[in-house]
Amino acid sequence: MLMIHNVNILTMNKEEENFNGFLTVEGNVFSEVKKGTPPQELIDQMDDVMDGNNKWLMPGLVNTHGHLGSSLLRGAGDDMPLMEWLEKVMWPNEGRFDKETVSIAAQVAMMEMIRSGTTTFLDMYHLHMDDMAELVLEKGMRAVLCRGMIGLSSEEEQEQKIQESVDLFHNYHGTGNGRVSVAMSPHAPYTCPPPFLQKVASAAVEHGMMIHTHLAETRGEVERHVKEYGKRPVAHLEELGIFNQPCLIAHGVHLNEDEIQILKKHHVAVSHNPISNLKLGSGIAPIPGMISAGLTIGIGTDSSASNNNLDMFEEMRMAALLHKGVHESPSVTNSEEILAMATHQGAKALRIKNVGKIEAGFKADFILIDAEQPHLTPANESTMQSHLVYSAKGSDVTDVFIDGIAQYSHRTLLKFDEEKILYQANHLAKNFV
Amino acid sequence: MLMIHNVNILTMNKEEENFNGFLTVEGNVFSEVKKGTPPQELIDQMDDVMDGNNKWLMPGLVNTHGHLGSSLLRGAGDDMPLMEWLEKVMWPNEGRFDKETVSIAAQVAMMEMIRSGTTTFLDMYHLHMDDMAELVLEKGMRAVLCRGMIGLSSEEEQEQKIQESVDLFHNYHGTGNGRVSVAMSPHAPYTCPPPFLQKVASAAVEHGMMIHTHLAETRGEVERHVKEYGKRPVAHLEELGIFNQPCLIAHGVHLNEDEIQILKKHHVAVSHNPISNLKLGSGIAPIPGMISAGLTIGIGTDSSASNNNLDMFEEMRMAALLHKGVHESPSVTNSEEILAMATHQGAKALRIKNVGKIEAGFKADFILIDAEQPHLTPANESTMQSHLVYSAKGSDVTDVFIDGIAQYSHRTLLKFDEEKILYQANHLAKNFV
Ligand SMILES: [Zn+2]
Ligand SMILES: [Zn+2]
Repeated sequence: MLMIHNVNILTMNKEEENFNGFLTVEGNVFSEVKKGTPPQELIDQMDDVMDGNNKWLMPGLVNTHGHLGSSLLRGAGDDMPLMEWLEKVMWPNEGRFDKETVSIAAQVAMMEMIRSGTTTFLDMYHLHMDDMAELVLEKGMRAVLCRGMIGLSSEEEQEQKIQESVDLFHNYHGTGNGRVSVAMSPHAPYTCPPPFLQKVASAAVEHGMMIHTHLAETRGEVERHVKEYGKRPVAHLEELGIFNQPCLIAHGVHLNEDEIQILKKHHVAVSHNPISNLKLGSGIAPIPGMISAGLTIGIGTDSSASNNNLDMFEEMRMAALLHKGVHESPSVTNSEEILAMATHQGAKALRIKNVGKIEAGFKADFILIDAEQPHLTPANESTMQSHLVYSAKGSDVTDVFIDGIAQYSHRTLLKFDEEKILYQANHLAKNFV
Repeated sequence: MLMIHNVNILTMNKEEENFNGFLTVEGNVFSEVKKGTPPQELIDQMDDVMDGNNKWLMPGLVNTHGHLGSSLLRGAGDDMPLMEWLEKVMWPNEGRFDKETVSIAAQVAMMEMIRSGTTTFLDMYHLHMDDMAELVLEKGMRAVLCRGMIGLSSEEEQEQKIQESVDLFHNYHGTGNGRVSVAMSPHAPYTCPPPFLQKVASAAVEHGMMIHTHLAETRGEVERHVKEYGKRPVAHLEELGIFNQPCLIAHGVHLNEDEIQILKKHHVAVSHNPISNLKLGSGIAPIPGMISAGLTIGIGTDSSASNNNLDMFEEMRMAALLHKGVHESPSVTNSEEILAMATHQGAKALRIKNVGKIEAGFKADFILIDAEQPHLTPANESTMQSHLVYSAKGSDVTDVFIDGIAQYSHRTLLKFDEEKILYQANHLAKNFV
């Protein structure tokens, strides 16, 4: 058993306050989380005891939307709108990605995520997802994996893509002590014709798979959708049965009040990706309206090619700041809600149970933060919550535990040969853009 | 003489490209900045030679608006609008600040700024500005210091505040080898009645001082101004003579096209503080319009009590991202322009000459960045500019030189007892909020 004591804990448990105390980890879950000093007899039972002096402890961050395989395209095609960027930069380069490129890209992304405190992520990608599953199992992270499917292809290819998703589900869903789950993932309504979406929906129902898709990312996409189908994309997906299974949509930038209500009715969760939406000029999602409607909202970075990093502290901060300014009202978001989105609400959006709180019985996914730094000063129990949202950086994370196991310790990655992977990444990147 | 070689240099000099090369520093200026490998005979003349392998070198960042003395109020009164935050949190607490509190707060802020690559800052504060000037001289930073003046007081007090500004100017302007300059600083039109602003303008003209003021930060402020004076604040300041001297305004969130043209006519520069403007719910400044009009724009963090940090990399990124999303157009800002704002355009806004480029004859204010990190991968000459805006963090800075002198080396502050100052700051902070 592991104990961490003398540490300021952000529990994310509404009934508990944030406090100075201790926790114990047994197997892959928290066994005790308490205020104050641990009794000596408990200390004596431990295999490992860590002093958390000058540290803050919080749940690991949950990144609800990304594309790890495209990490080597970071910085390619800045300052371009979504469709131009997809058609001129992303798709032609990705068309030339081989197995090794995707694997190295995914490892660069995982290193970046762990270093900045992310313990769980969703990955939507169309290449080598079996390898990705093996990587997640090996590197110890928690992940939802989606074989992203573009439906603009022959019926045979469509069937094959769905079959690959189902195979991925059967081979990996629930593996790694439950760390890996698998979802069905049509890319977007504008890349998936209705008959294909119907097939996707039936396959998801048949196998009991969650569905994840991009939705209403740009104004142009919604306008073209109305022109082509005579209706907006939310109504369209509802009719095609996509919302009959547990569903998570990414972006939801251009949603009206009625559409938010449709999502609410079907318990559809939203992954808010504010930085990617800004960077591609897609717009600003109506988050205060979604909060009022009671939607489950998670936060996501999207890929490092449209962000351009995977730091969930930055993404939290953007989600906290942006809507205050747009609505000229500082109370439309607050640090508590934003932290929930980045932790247990994100896990709920991914349909992962018992993740995102520091609470007995929850999965032991947690991070430690070095609070003794100028930008986190004054540092105490009462500033911790604010500073974690408005001041902290991914680089403040010193230790990361996932499913009870240390994966990053004293700012060192335990399962990656970092120097080698970065060298390979820089070398491979020369082949692209 | 110092040489740094084998380093990727972001020159910010339009005629030069970014390149791998070397530079030499003689006294407080760059003497050579060149592509490629330095000749052996030049190396032989050096006192100190640094290998910049895997590093990026760029001009030190210029933070054009802040209030260092309020750093210990970081995290106090989140999620409140500007006037409520000023009246309930800032002013009552600041009313109890003593000399030591302001000095420790300023040192925490300076440590944070140097650590995150800022070499020049503007400080507007109303307490102990002589001490601040001494601190800047001692700690080696470059700064514009302003004794912030609220004019809602007796005529005698008004005169005294102006006299303090003039004294600060005579005692410190141009000291520290030109590192310190002093400006005249009325707080804002809504806290400075017209007769006071006229006196400020005359004193500035008489002594040849630049003027710095908050302007058009909130919609309510502009509306109240129109009600009280029958005109918007820009026209008001123009009439009162404030724009007759070199002038820098902070915020400029609520400006219309005509007002931007008035600012342009008088060569008034703008300090864009996007994060503070979002956090306080003030709104979003019309930066694309200001860029089109050709205004000189710098970037500022405002105080860590309304930001809540002083990391200019975050502020650059926000300035680069925000307007793309608001205008649903990714081309309204680009990384080159934003880097200019954070370096030589910022220096120009502060009326500081020969700062903000890596160019022979420019002041040797520069920073080194550790480019061998997952979130900066792929790292090469062609991704450097994009990554510095869209991916880098303040914590990537490893070395900071100001006026030719190292102030931060291998991530260690050379002129601060950091542990002691943080301890004092945490101790003093208990007296407030
Ligand atoms: Zn995406
Ligand atoms: Zn200010």
